[in-house]
Formats: sequence, structure tokens, C-alpha cells
Amino acid sequence: MKKTYLLTPGPTQIPPEVLSTQARPIIHHRTKEYMDLFDEVNEDLKYLFQTKNIVLSFAASGTGAMESSVVNIFSPDEKALFVRGGKFGERWGEICEAYGIQSIPIDVEWGDVVNPEVIDKHLQKDPEIKAVYTSHCETSTGVLTDIQAIGEIVSKTPTLLVVDAVSALGACELRTDDWSVDLCVSGSQKGMMLPPGLSFVSVSEKAWKAVETSTLPKYYWDYRSAKKMLDKSQTPFTPSVSLIVGLKAALKLIKEEGMEMILKRHERLAEATRSAVKSLGLKLFSKVPANAVTAIVMPEGVDAEKVRGVMDKKFGIKVAGGQEKLKGKIIRIAHLGYVETFDILASISALEMSLSNVGYPVELGKGVRAAQEVLCREEVE
Amino acid sequence: MKKTYLLTPGPTQIPPEVLSTQARPIIHHRTKEYMDLFDEVNEDLKYLFQTKNIVLSFAASGTGAMESSVVNIFSPDEKALFVRGGKFGERWGEICEAYGIQSIPIDVEWGDVVNPEVIDKHLQKDPEIKAVYTSHCETSTGVLTDIQAIGEIVSKTPTLLVVDAVSALGACELRTDDWSVDLCVSGSQKGMMLPPGLSFVSVSEKAWKAVETSTLPKYYWDYRSAKKMLDKSQTPFTPSVSLIVGLKAALKLIKEEGMEMILKRHERLAEATRSAVKSLGLKLFSKVPANAVTAIVMPEGVDAEKVRGVMDKKFGIKVAGGQEKLKGKIIRIAHLGYVETFDILASISALEMSLSNVGYPVELGKGVRAAQEVLCREEVE
Repeated sequence: MKKTYLLTPGPTQIPPEVLSTQARPIIHHRTKEYMDLFDEVNEDLKYLFQTKNIVLSFAASGTGAMESSVVNIFSPDEKALFVRGGKFGERWGEICEAYGIQSIPIDVEWGDVVNPEVIDKHLQKDPEIKAVYTSHCETSTGVLTDIQAIGEIVSKTPTLLVVDAVSALGACELRTDDWSVDLCVSGSQKGMMLPPGLSFVSVSEKAWKAVETSTLPKYYWDYRSAKKMLDKSQTPFTPSVSLIVGLKAALKLIKEEGMEMILKRHERLAEATRSAVKSLGLKLFSKVPANAVTAIVMPEGVDAEKVRGVMDKKFGIKVAGGQEKLKGKIIRIAHLGYVETFDILASISALEMSLSNVGYPVELGKGVRAAQEVLCREEVE
Repeated sequence: MKKTYLLTPGPTQIPPEVLSTQARPIIHHRTKEYMDLFDEVNEDLKYLFQTKNIVLSFAASGTGAMESSVVNIFSPDEKALFVRGGKFGERWGEICEAYGIQSIPIDVEWGDVVNPEVIDKHLQKDPEIKAVYTSHCETSTGVLTDIQAIGEIVSKTPTLLVVDAVSALGACELRTDDWSVDLCVSGSQKGMMLPPGLSFVSVSEKAWKAVETSTLPKYYWDYRSAKKMLDKSQTPFTPSVSLIVGLKAALKLIKEEGMEMILKRHERLAEATRSAVKSLGLKLFSKVPANAVTAIVMPEGVDAEKVRGVMDKKFGIKVAGGQEKLKGKIIRIAHLGYVETFDILASISALEMSLSNVGYPVELGKGVRAAQEVLCREEVE
């Protein structure tokens, strides 16, 4: 017998209150029952996104909503600026390229964040840049970008700000409206505590103006038809009914805990993880670590995949490895969504025991103790 | 206390064996456990699609896979021929139009089917037509198109045949390879007995040649990256993990019953429904009715929405109404997926009682009896 602890940055653990809704008989979406539920969900999404604007939902994973944020605001040959400092930053460039959008990368070393002043300079030099694409938490490196500072810069220009908040939403403070985020993209399988298969985008008034003149081809992702149907408590195409039902239950938990407490919880768990990592003499990969996921550099000569394998097979603790050039070099522990004190202590403890198992000398319990010091320091309700 | 019978043409009822998988803790998709499961699912999908070719899956509803079948084979300004005889036929035209494809409609009266010879004439007259788009069962009208005959015609030309089998798959005989269907599109929430949120497309060798030269923009729907990842037992983007897990359970049920028996069951239930309708003096809307769904014309002066409302609110039987110009005129009873004898008897009985309730004279039990005569006639295992 071995319990499984899923501590990857998506999918994340699903609370029983949400999971149990998934086994309920399916309901039809063209009914008052569904429409009332969908209306509630759409209101609650505004709370989660910290926006007064509408939040559109798609039956698709996060990349679908990312693509939607390109095809709905651009016309061919227009220009985008994007931050390339990880796998998901690269994705912005790939999507723009697929649609013939001139995409100008700001290259950032993986593990580092963009300096907002660099964005400012680009926009001053080239006012034709129609949108800036960046991630809030770059899931592949665990860094947190200063969206507030970027928002201040971009909002003074006609340029739009598009943020990949797939892993940040519900874990890192993100004030969509206050920070002037025009399109805020997210997905269901992270801080929303749901299975993957839903993605979302909030759309500002400024963004709607671009939507109205955009001529890139689209059908499934079309914001205009999505908005038209949202006004009728519907989506243009069959929604992922079961996930929307689960979303209602998840948003209920989110409202009950409250955004402030949720962010504090993530902060506390992240700080405990980082403190444990440092106490073990290990290095954090991220220069500005996000509270959603902690990327840990494995010591010279230690294969991250081997450590991760022991954590999984011997202890049932599932964490993520590095992607692309980081494969074998880092492991990533997510403290994201339905995660609390003992998930973190379990993961730190498994890390210690697994490092020891692969022959790397650690003082067992040292990281756990460092984490505990953080975890008992903060007030818990 | 009132039990609910979902007899709409999607979503359809979900078997308990499938539903219960949806409440299992989520697993991560970049694991051997998931990859083994996904490999099995992909093999079993070939059985369901009656194809030797690969079947790609998307985290999206059926329209997503429909769109994918346009953007992956066309380049701008090329020509498509499509059959427009219902809401989903119209959708083919809308998608083509959104992508600047010259789409030539073959207009068919709603409730009727296309004559394959008309397609033949079009292809002879205009060899530049790159693909023919049609539906197998047009869900909005309940008609069954003769895909075998169309396949014989199209396969002799360089043109591709794309079939919307969203509601037909698993209900109506569909021999993807034998009938030369190049792209066969389907969705999870019909004969597959799953929640909505997954869609599929099988891709023939002939279609792959078009995929390789297609220049329409795409990213999320890109078959080339999907195939590349399929070879690695993965999808390019996070899959709907829970629905894929459910799909495995659904395909297990499908294999256990066997395609032949499944098609016979649908035929028997559909025939019973049609026989009941006729015995009540009502008319079938479809000139060539499919075994997936039966569209019933309400008598002059009887509002279909009112009948449907009574069936739902008083008896818990949920059926579909007419879409667009058929609203208020027809009701549609689906015998699709996880449906058997007593679902049909319940729906016929509810139809009789509801017609009576709205003041239309019916002989109670007459339709039920007619259905029974069909249902007991056939051999049941």
C-alpha cells in the first residue's frame, strides 16, 4: 500500500468535493439547470480572475485559449512582442508564427524574468507592436514575472497585454483589471483544482476593440460568437458539461476560502519549500520564484530524473522534471491548488530520502525542519 | 421522486462503469501509466472507427475536430463541396468560409438526404474540388446519408471525403476504410457514452498527402504535431486526462458488446421508435431515418416545445427539440449509446402521455405496444 501525492504543476490534485461531481449523471447543456449553473460559474470566474470583464471558456486545454488570444486580436502581418524565457514563452512565438504574425522575441535566460523596462523600450521604438505576450508564472522554470509593472507600461500605449496565467491563477496574486491585463489566459488543471480540458480568457474593453477589427481566420475560438452565446448563458459549441459542473464546485471552495487566504496559503507553502531546499544546500533554479511551483537544481552529478523516479516509485510522490534543455537538471515541486502543509512536508521528506537513496549525502529531516519552521510560524485559521 | 432519462442526441447517458472512473484521482499524463492507457485507447479507437489508420484525439468538442479537418488539408482559396441539409451541414460551410475556402453548397431539403449522383456530377464538372464534406447522420434532422455510395464516387477521384460522424459513430454502420472515408470526425458525447469534451478524427493515407502540403494556419489542431506526439504515446498539449480514462472504460464496453451487436441494438431500438411513432399517427421527419436519432413531426397545432416540456417536467424524459427553423415543429428522441429496451418504452410512453396532456388525442399504450412488437421480435442475447 502506497498513497500517491500528485505535486506536479498540472494536473494537480482534485478535492473530493469536486471529484465526486464528476461521477454524477450528465446533464444536458441546453436546459435551464445548466444555464443557471453556467451563469453562476461565469460570475464566480470574475472573482477568481479579479476582473469585472467577461471570462470566456473553451472546451480545450490551456494552449487552446493561448491560440484564441492570438487569432482574435490580430490581422495578418501585424506585430507581436513576446517574452521567451521558457517553454511556454516559446509557445507564444510558435502560435504567432503559425498565423503569420511578426513576432519579436525578448530573450530571457531560463530561470530569469524579463525586465519591464525592456518591454517599455521596445514599445517606444516600435509603436506598431499590437500586443505583448508574456507569462505570469512560467511553469517550465518557476519564475514570476512582474505583471503589475508591465501593465503600467503597456496600459499607457495602444498596445494590448496578454498574460499566460495558466499556472499562476489562484496561486500568485494577479489583479487582472488593476494591473491592466487585456487578455488573461488560464486553464482548469492547476489552481482551479479540476481535471484538464477547460481553458479560459478574460477580455478587456480595450481588447474587444481589437477583436472587432481582427481578420485572422477563426471559428472554434471566435470571441464574438462566444460572447454572443454567453449573453444567452451558453457556448457556441457543446461545452465540457461535466467539467463545468466540477468548476462550480471548485469555485465554491475558492470563494469559501477567499482569494486572500488562498494566496497566503500558497505563499506559505512556497516559502516553506524554498526554505527546505536551501537548508539542504540545494539551489533554487528561479531567480524570482513564483508561489505556484518551485524549481530545484539537482547537485552536480545527480540525475534529476533518477531522483524523481525514486520519489515516485518508492514513495508515491509525483513531481515534475525539467522540460527540454532542463531535462535531468531540475525537479519541480508544485504547491498549486489543493495542496496543504503535509503535502509539502511529504514532498520535502521524499526529496531528502530519494537524494540519500541515489547516494547524495543529505542530513535527513533537515529540510523538513526548515519547512516546519515556516509552516508553524504563520498564523493558520 | 422522479428518475431522469436522458434521450437527447448528445450528451447521452453514461454507463456507471464509465461514470465511476471520472471520480478517480487524476493521474499525470507524462507517465508510463497514462501512456500505456493512451496506447490502448488509440488501438481500440481503430476498432470503433473500423479503420487501420490512426485516430487523432483533441481536447475539444466535435466542432473542434470538424475545424481541424478543414485547416489541415486546405491552402487558401482552394475549393470544397459540402452538403447543406441541416444545422451541421451548414457548419461545414461556415468553417470553410471562416478560412477563406471557396465552399460550394449542395442544398438538400432539411429531412432529406443528398443524392450521391449530384456529388458525382459536381466532381466531374469541377476536378479542382479538393474535398467533399458531408454528415453521416445529420443530427438536426435525423437523416442517414449513404456514405458508402459517396465513398465509391469520391475514391475514384483525387478529391478527399470528410464525414461528420459525430452522432453516427457507434450507432450506424460506418466502415471508414471500406467506404473510403478520408477524414472521419467524431465526438465523445454520443455513441461513445462519455461526457462531451473529446473529439476525434481518423486520417487516411490519401488525406495525409494533403496534410503535408496544406498551408492554412493552425497550431492546436495541427495533425502533423499530433501524429508526431502520438508516436510517443502523447498529445502535443495537455489531454483531457479524465475523459481519456473514461474512454478506456467505454471502449472496453464497446469491445465486449461488439460492433455488430451494438449496431443491431441501435437498429432494433430505432425501428421500435419509428414503429411506435407511426402507430400513433405521427410522421417521421426524416425521409431516410438514421438509427441514432428519430425526428418526429408534431401534429398541426401542437407545439413541440410544449410536448417536450411536459415529457421533461412531468415525466423526467429529456428529448431534444428542433433546431433553428425546426424549433417548435419536431421533437427528436435519441436511441444513441447507452440506451436499451426500457429507455425507449419509457420515452414512447411519455410521448403518448404528454401528447394527451396537451390535449392531442392519442390512444394511450398504442405506441408502446407497437414498439414492444419490434422489441420482442428480434432475438436478444
